[in-house]
Amino acid sequence: MMRNIKLLVEYEGTRYQGWQTQKDGPTVQSTLEGVIEKLTGEKCALIGAGRTDAGVHALGQVAAFKTSSALDTATIRRALNAVLPHDIRVREAAEVADSFHPRYSSSEKTYFYLIANTGVVSPFMERYVWQVPQKLDIDAMSEAANGLVGRHDFRAFMGAGSSVKGSVREVRELFVEYLNGMDFLGVSLEGGFIRIRVRGDGFLRHMVRNMVGTLVEVARGKIKPEAVKEILASGDRSNAGPTAPAKGLFLEKVLYVP
Amino acid sequence: MMRNIKLLVEYEGTRYQGWQTQKDGPTVQSTLEGVIEKLTGEKCALIGAGRTDAGVHALGQVAAFKTSSALDTATIRRALNAVLPHDIRVREAAEVADSFHPRYSSSEKTYFYLIANTGVVSPFMERYVWQVPQKLDIDAMSEAANGLVGRHDFRAFMGAGSSVKGSVREVRELFVEYLNGMDFLGVSLEGGFIRIRVRGDGFLRHMVRNMVGTLVEVARGKIKPEAVKEILASGDRSNAGPTAPAKGLFLEKVLYVP
Repeated sequence: MMRNIKLLVEYEGTRYQGWQTQKDGPTVQSTLEGVIEKLTGEKCALIGAGRTDAGVHALGQVAAFKTSSALDTATIRRALNAVLPHDIRVREAAEVADSFHPRYSSSEKTYFYLIANTGVVSPFMERYVWQVPQKLDIDAMSEAANGLVGRHDFRAFMGAGSSVKGSVREVRELFVEYLNGMDFLGVSLEGGFIRIRVRGDGFLRHMVRNMVGTLVEVARGKIKPEAVKEILASGDRSNAGPTAPAKGLFLEKVLYVP
Repeated sequence: MMRNIKLLVEYEGTRYQGWQTQKDGPTVQSTLEGVIEKLTGEKCALIGAGRTDAGVHALGQVAAFKTSSALDTATIRRALNAVLPHDIRVREAAEVADSFHPRYSSSEKTYFYLIANTGVVSPFMERYVWQVPQKLDIDAMSEAANGLVGRHDFRAFMGAGSSVKGSVREVRELFVEYLNGMDFLGVSLEGGFIRIRVRGDGFLRHMVRNMVGTLVEVARGKIKPEAVKEILASGDRSNAGPTAPAKGLFLEKVLYVP
C-alpha cells in the first residue's frame, strides 16, 4: 500500500539551480529526493507545487512523494531535517489522500518580490533583494499593477522555453507597497524597500519576474502605467520589461481548497 | 596633513575569520584595508572598535584610518562599496578629529545574541542563531542575568588567550527577552526565539558568548540562577558555562560621547 506524503518546505535558494532537477548543479528537488531515498530505501519521485528558478527562495513550497515506508510523519520530518543541508528545512510532513497532487490540486499561489530602493544594501538583505537605487514612482507602479489583475492571457509575460499549452492565468492580487526601513531580527535596517505581492491561480515561467521587471520600467518612467494593459493585450514578450533577478523572489504560500 | 576617517561598517560575518587580520583566511579588517589601499594608494592601518570573533556579525562596527587623500567622504563611501564584497558595507564615512580612536574613544557598546528555541530553524535564520531546542526557563535566565549587571571583575567570563591587563568591566544592561516568532522581510517566521541584549563600557574576549553560554546552562536547569553571582565572584572561567557559538552574536552599536 503506497502512502502519499505531503511536505511543507522552506529554502534559501542562493545555492541551488532552482527547484527542478537539472543536469548541472544541485537543485532543491534532487537534494530532497536524495535524502528521502536514503531514509525510505526506495526510489523517490518528488513533485513540487512551483518550479522555482535558480536563486528563488521559498517560505512555503509544497511537495509530495509516494512511499511504502511505514515511518510516521513526525519521524520523517525529523529524519529529513537531521540530514538535509541547513538551507532546506521541512516545516511539516503529513499523510494525504492518494489523489493529492501538489501542483494540480493547488488553488492559489502567493509570491512576493523585494526591491531595495537604496544606495547601500545591507549585507543581511543582499541575497533577498534586487537593488534599484534610482528614484522610483510608486504610484505609477501601483496603477500599472492594477492593469494586470484579472483573468488574462499572460503570454507577453511568459519566459522563453516554456512548454505549457495555455497561457491564460488569473492574477487575483498584485499589490505594490513601499516600506521605509525593513525589520531584520528585530532591528530596523535603513533604506527604502518595495514589496510586490502577487496572488493567483498559477503562474507561467518567469511571469512574476517579468511583471516585476516591467513594473520597475514603469517606476523609472520608461513605460507609461497605462501602456502595461496594451503590453498585456499584445501578447508579445518583447514589449514587456526585462526579467527581474531571481534572488528577490519568494514563493510564500500554496493554497489548497478541498 | 593626515585626515582621520571614521567608518560605520555593517557585515555578515559568516565568511570571515573575524574582524582582526589573521594569518589564515580573510578578515573584515584585512578586506577593508585592501580596498582602502587601492583607493588611496597608501598603506592603511584600520582600527576597529570591537575585535569581533570569526563568524560574529556587525550592524554597527566603527573603524577609522588615517589618510593624506583629499577624496571627500561621500566619494570614499561610494568607492569602497563599489568594490567591497556584498557581505561588507560602509554605511557612513566621516572626517573626525585626529584624536578620535574607535576603541579608546568609545563610551559604550551594545551587542545582542539570538537563540532559536525551536526544533526547526528557518534557512533564513540559520546563520544568525544558536539553536537550543530544549525547554528553557526564561525567568531563571533573567534572574541570573540581573546578577551580572554592574561593575565587576569579569575574569570568570574571559576567554583564554586574552592579553588585556584589567578585567573589570561595567555591564549596564543584560536583558533577556522571549519572542514568539521572528519577523523576516515582513513575514513572521514560526518558532520561539530568545534575544539577549547586553550594553556595557567594554567587553573582554568571548565575554558576551561566555555569559550567554552560562545563561543557557541556567535556562536548562544545570546552573541555579543565584549561583551565577558566585561564578562571577570566583573569577574562575571553569565555573562558568560553555562559550556560545559565534554566529548568534551581533555587534549592534558603538557609542561615543564627546
